[in-house]
Amino acid sequence: MIIVTRIGVTEDELDQIRERVESLGLRTHVSRGESRTVIGCIGDEERLQHVPLLSIPGVESVHPVMRPYKLAAKEFSAQPTRIPIGEVQLGGPEVVVVAGPCSVEGEAMLRETALGVKAAGARALRGGAFKPRTSPYSFRGMEEEGLELLAATRVESGLPVVTEVMDTRQVEAVAGHADVLQVGARNMQNYALLTEVGRVHRPVLLKRGMSATIQDLLLAAEYVMKQGNMDVILCERGIRTFETATRNTFDVSAIPVLKSETHLPVLADPSHAGGYRFLVAPLAHAAVAAGADGLLVEVHPDPELAMSDGDQSLDLEGFRAFMRALAPFVTAAGRTLAPQEPAPA
Amino acid sequence: MIIVTRIGVTEDELDQIRERVESLGLRTHVSRGESRTVIGCIGDEERLQHVPLLSIPGVESVHPVMRPYKLAAKEFSAQPTRIPIGEVQLGGPEVVVVAGPCSVEGEAMLRETALGVKAAGARALRGGAFKPRTSPYSFRGMEEEGLELLAATRVESGLPVVTEVMDTRQVEAVAGHADVLQVGARNMQNYALLTEVGRVHRPVLLKRGMSATIQDLLLAAEYVMKQGNMDVILCERGIRTFETATRNTFDVSAIPVLKSETHLPVLADPSHAGGYRFLVAPLAHAAVAAGADGLLVEVHPDPELAMSDGDQSLDLEGFRAFMRALAPFVTAAGRTLAPQEPAPA
Amino acid sequence: MIIVTRIGVTEDELDQIRERVESLGLRTHVSRGESRTVIGCIGDEERLQHVPLLSIPGVESVHPVMRPYKLAAKEFSAQPTRIPIGEVQLGGPEVVVVAGPCSVEGEAMLRETALGVKAAGARALRGGAFKPRTSPYSFRGMEEEGLELLAATRVESGLPVVTEVMDTRQVEAVAGHADVLQVGARNMQNYALLTEVGRVHRPVLLKRGMSATIQDLLLAAEYVMKQGNMDVILCERGIRTFETATRNTFDVSAIPVLKSETHLPVLADPSHAGGYRFLVAPLAHAAVAAGADGLLVEVHPDPELAMSDGDQSLDLEGFRAFMRALAPFVTAAGRTLAPQEPAPA
Amino acid sequence: MIIVTRIGVTEDELDQIRERVESLGLRTHVSRGESRTVIGCIGDEERLQHVPLLSIPGVESVHPVMRPYKLAAKEFSAQPTRIPIGEVQLGGPEVVVVAGPCSVEGEAMLRETALGVKAAGARALRGGAFKPRTSPYSFRGMEEEGLELLAATRVESGLPVVTEVMDTRQVEAVAGHADVLQVGARNMQNYALLTEVGRVHRPVLLKRGMSATIQDLLLAAEYVMKQGNMDVILCERGIRTFETATRNTFDVSAIPVLKSETHLPVLADPSHAGGYRFLVAPLAHAAVAAGADGLLVEVHPDPELAMSDGDQSLDLEGFRAFMRALAPFVTAAGRTLAPQEPAPA
Repeated sequence: MIIVTRIGVTEDELDQIRERVESLGLRTHVSRGESRTVIGCIGDEERLQHVPLLSIPGVESVHPVMRPYKLAAKEFSAQPTRIPIGEVQLGGPEVVVVAGPCSVEGEAMLRETALGVKAAGARALRGGAFKPRTSPYSFRGMEEEGLELLAATRVESGLPVVTEVMDTRQVEAVAGHADVLQVGARNMQNYALLTEVGRVHRPVLLKRGMSATIQDLLLAAEYVMKQGNMDVILCERGIRTFETATRNTFDVSAIPVLKSETHLPVLADPSHAGGYRFLVAPLAHAAVAAGADGLLVEVHPDPELAMSDGDQSLDLEGFRAFMRALAPFVTAAGRTLAPQEPAPA
Repeated sequence: MIIVTRIGVTEDELDQIRERVESLGLRTHVSRGESRTVIGCIGDEERLQHVPLLSIPGVESVHPVMRPYKLAAKEFSAQPTRIPIGEVQLGGPEVVVVAGPCSVEGEAMLRETALGVKAAGARALRGGAFKPRTSPYSFRGMEEEGLELLAATRVESGLPVVTEVMDTRQVEAVAGHADVLQVGARNMQNYALLTEVGRVHRPVLLKRGMSATIQDLLLAAEYVMKQGNMDVILCERGIRTFETATRNTFDVSAIPVLKSETHLPVLADPSHAGGYRFLVAPLAHAAVAAGADGLLVEVHPDPELAMSDGDQSLDLEGFRAFMRALAPFVTAAGRTLAPQEPAPA
Repeated sequence: MIIVTRIGVTEDELDQIRERVESLGLRTHVSRGESRTVIGCIGDEERLQHVPLLSIPGVESVHPVMRPYKLAAKEFSAQPTRIPIGEVQLGGPEVVVVAGPCSVEGEAMLRETALGVKAAGARALRGGAFKPRTSPYSFRGMEEEGLELLAATRVESGLPVVTEVMDTRQVEAVAGHADVLQVGARNMQNYALLTEVGRVHRPVLLKRGMSATIQDLLLAAEYVMKQGNMDVILCERGIRTFETATRNTFDVSAIPVLKSETHLPVLADPSHAGGYRFLVAPLAHAAVAAGADGLLVEVHPDPELAMSDGDQSLDLEGFRAFMRALAPFVTAAGRTLAPQEPAPA
Repeated sequence: MIIVTRIGVTEDELDQIRERVESLGLRTHVSRGESRTVIGCIGDEERLQHVPLLSIPGVESVHPVMRPYKLAAKEFSAQPTRIPIGEVQLGGPEVVVVAGPCSVEGEAMLRETALGVKAAGARALRGGAFKPRTSPYSFRGMEEEGLELLAATRVESGLPVVTEVMDTRQVEAVAGHADVLQVGARNMQNYALLTEVGRVHRPVLLKRGMSATIQDLLLAAEYVMKQGNMDVILCERGIRTFETATRNTFDVSAIPVLKSETHLPVLADPSHAGGYRFLVAPLAHAAVAAGADGLLVEVHPDPELAMSDGDQSLDLEGFRAFMRALAPFVTAAGRTLAPQEPAPA
């Protein structure tokens, strides 16, 4: 921590600042400039984190030196973390595509989607049983019944399942049916939920909040990891800005920034980021080119009838085409993609 | 709902769009322009809400006509909603000030704060037992013990208590000790929590999320109200923007916009919005001038020792001065303020 | 300037960093922490401003210590700057209201507006002869003819005139007809224009850009002042955020932040900030409560017929009512307002 | 234009609204809903653009149907616009890379950069003679002398030159020395400048403003095109958001959105968008994957000594490596890249 004093700080004030810092077990180092004086605080910066240094007379600004996250930081792990889901590893050489409907709407549509996306090269099935919806009047998912349909489809298709958990009371039930627990953007700072998913033995897919900085996202991951669950998958899905031409602004830079800051794998969700079907492919290509370890793509057998997010969902034929168009970018990035089965006759 | 078609839409496409809309029980009304055609959809707009209209060939854009909230809308209630807390009503003529520490840190400091802010004119005590903190390494509150201290201080001081609830599993316990349940900015779209606080008989203080639009805030209130709990208090506490000189950007316009859209009372939190002590008074004055029904102010007997938010907390003497400086703006707004007891000798 | 090094920085790298800094005439001061080392740079920070310190191996982050502006900084002037316009001083005890149409549309409407706003207590007339419009197909002002109408109305009404200048080639002509040169939000970083208005002897009203930080605004003022023109009036008029309920987000906090950073007077423009007539009064009250030295208000004799910004303009009767409603907030703020003449019979 | 009325609008109000619209030569079409009535306005929407419809009693909201730009719209041109610069065409099959220093700093460095980037596959030289700088104390370019160095280097290297123009009075001089006139982000809504560059016979490279929507950018292009200069090149260079890990937030979605809205070519500037050297390559890859027609890259022979933007500049060896790493993404996008000459021995 570096403390910068106001112009005209007195010796008494300087002493008070130093005493306060040293009383917490850190050492101080004073550099006197022409108008301001700088106090370097050496030692465990964490102890200063909750101290209202700006309240001490003479202090003008405070500059943290350490990253506030540890377990999520690159320094913590020499190797990139690889998280197995089903037959592949997230964070390994393969660009892993997770696909499926926004909401589980019924048995037939879920089975059709699972088999279709698997044949096209998806490695896991996504689908919401519990849906966070901005309006209380919107369809909010099939809930427990949806979970059971996911579990059944998981067995039948052989695809691991990624599904959202929204309530601390559901964590156990969802962990019993799913391979990966998703924490949605709106719950990224729901610390009770982060703590709870940190206690189960399931990888957690953590979506970036709409107004979360990259540092906030890493601190949310830290909450989960601090409980002992080190298998956190980060996901960029767009942030909120002034631009209204897209549903959110896909922050593609977050991918290389995260890759330089953390050992955790990084996915991208081009469906939610853009909000329109025509943007799914270009944003997916951009994400892979920027270094994403995988993608989350919304697919519905009949998007016009989808009960949520139909405007941004691909149909099964569209998803096959999407995977074919993605392949050259995966190759350019020096990565691999699951092979596509021949189209059904 | 109004549907605008693409240039060159065909008659077949127009028929398909109309059929889809009419199949849901609405009527359609077609206006042919020079290049685009406009289809007015008459009837229950809600039925169209989950329909991916943009997926239908020929559709270019879709414009909702109705407000998506109902119970929270001004049309729902001829009179502004007044919510009694303790001896006053939120939403009535008095500007109600709720004050207290960011976190409950112990019995003595809580009692001293409660008695001090009451004497200075506060009508309720705020204080966090469960604290949402960006870092898992920060102090996260005294939890259950904090709740009990709040309950004891409530009895001793006679001040009603406002405290945050962060987990669906805590709702009952918090409702047992507090007069008002606060839902924090980070949980504004935690729909499981909104549903749960909608089921108890306690007013809910709902803080606007950092990236929530005013409409999002009203939809979050609607979640609570839909469960039967109509006593929702809205709170503007700053939004996230590019400006870094303040902790958040206090959206003062939200106050008159909310007053024109809803019958619910509207508070402002100048402490969190600004993030610095010197901003608390000017932002509070601005909030009252813009029509706020009350204020939430952080007060700590010794801000330099506060375990959280010390940089933006007033001390007790500062709070007395704050209330005195506030009074003329309250009068200018045609409102009243609780009287201040004479300073202790 | 404080330089923080990467974990594992070598002694050689440290030496290189120090040599680079010292070669520019500054001294360095090294504090070795547990993982990172901090280098304080003592001396003229400006010399380091263009140096790409992050390019030097071993450097992780760089923290400026000095404010980048000087002439605009509070330290530069012991007293708040007072800028005379007409019979009053901006920055003095009176809250100065500048009112008038968005665009000059003709002689009669301009005269009627000038006399009307003067009678209601305005101290200066605003009106655009050159209009920056987002679309090239919108009305762009009466240009030179508009300037001449302003000059004539100035003489007739006795009100000083504030009008926008958009092009370096117009500066001389506008300065010949107006009392205050306005630089609009879209030109706040048009450095050629800032330089040119810095060379004339007319106060400059500088509006904050839609995405300008408070620091950017002060640096723009510095451009003008560096040329010798110290009479810069700052104006908060709303910034661009994700919120769409208002035209812009009025950053009321900018007013007290500016008052703490600079000696220059600060106005607010509630008309552009909100974008709707019903927001003009509450935002004006908030601005005055937060410490604004004056207001810029759009007034048109018949807003329904206005050629620009009609939706946010007050009519003359509305402006009289506005001024009466403003008065108690001005008094609460310890300021004065020009008296209102009795309404014409 | 679609006008939606308030709940409880009267027949008289409806008649007034219709009369106002019809008085401008449009027809109206009324659809009565259960609570609100919708008025479709058929005819030339432009005539309604400056009418303050929200000021008419009974009007609640107004929804434009037409795009506000015409010459820039896709409908205006059946084919994508191709703009020749030097030996290639912007907007054709080749991904065109424009490279060079942020500022022209002297003859030797400019010549070395030009020859180096040309050998590595750049097709044009960028370099600023006039520099817009946030601080008036920063280096602001070599100005006229810089222009002459660019002109000389242009002849020597055979590379066309792209350079910024900041002042209407410079347009002629810059057009005399450069092949492409750049309008910077800060001047994107400097309408006097847009008008002036619309009158010369040189392609204009128009950078998106930091807070400009995609629609604002297209309207700025429309300003230039309306003067007769149809050769406008758009450039995404990052927008301002709350994220501070990067200098700006690179809005990669803007590329496919622009490609779907306009026939004009679209470049990306990964150097300014990210602000750090390590981000240049991943953002460039993402831009090409998302469909960009070209890139603007900052290159300096010795970034540590650069007088501006050194932290985000590549050195010559770095640029050669950058171009090699870019090639596979260009191929994946189905585009071509200029060949690289063998490295000098």
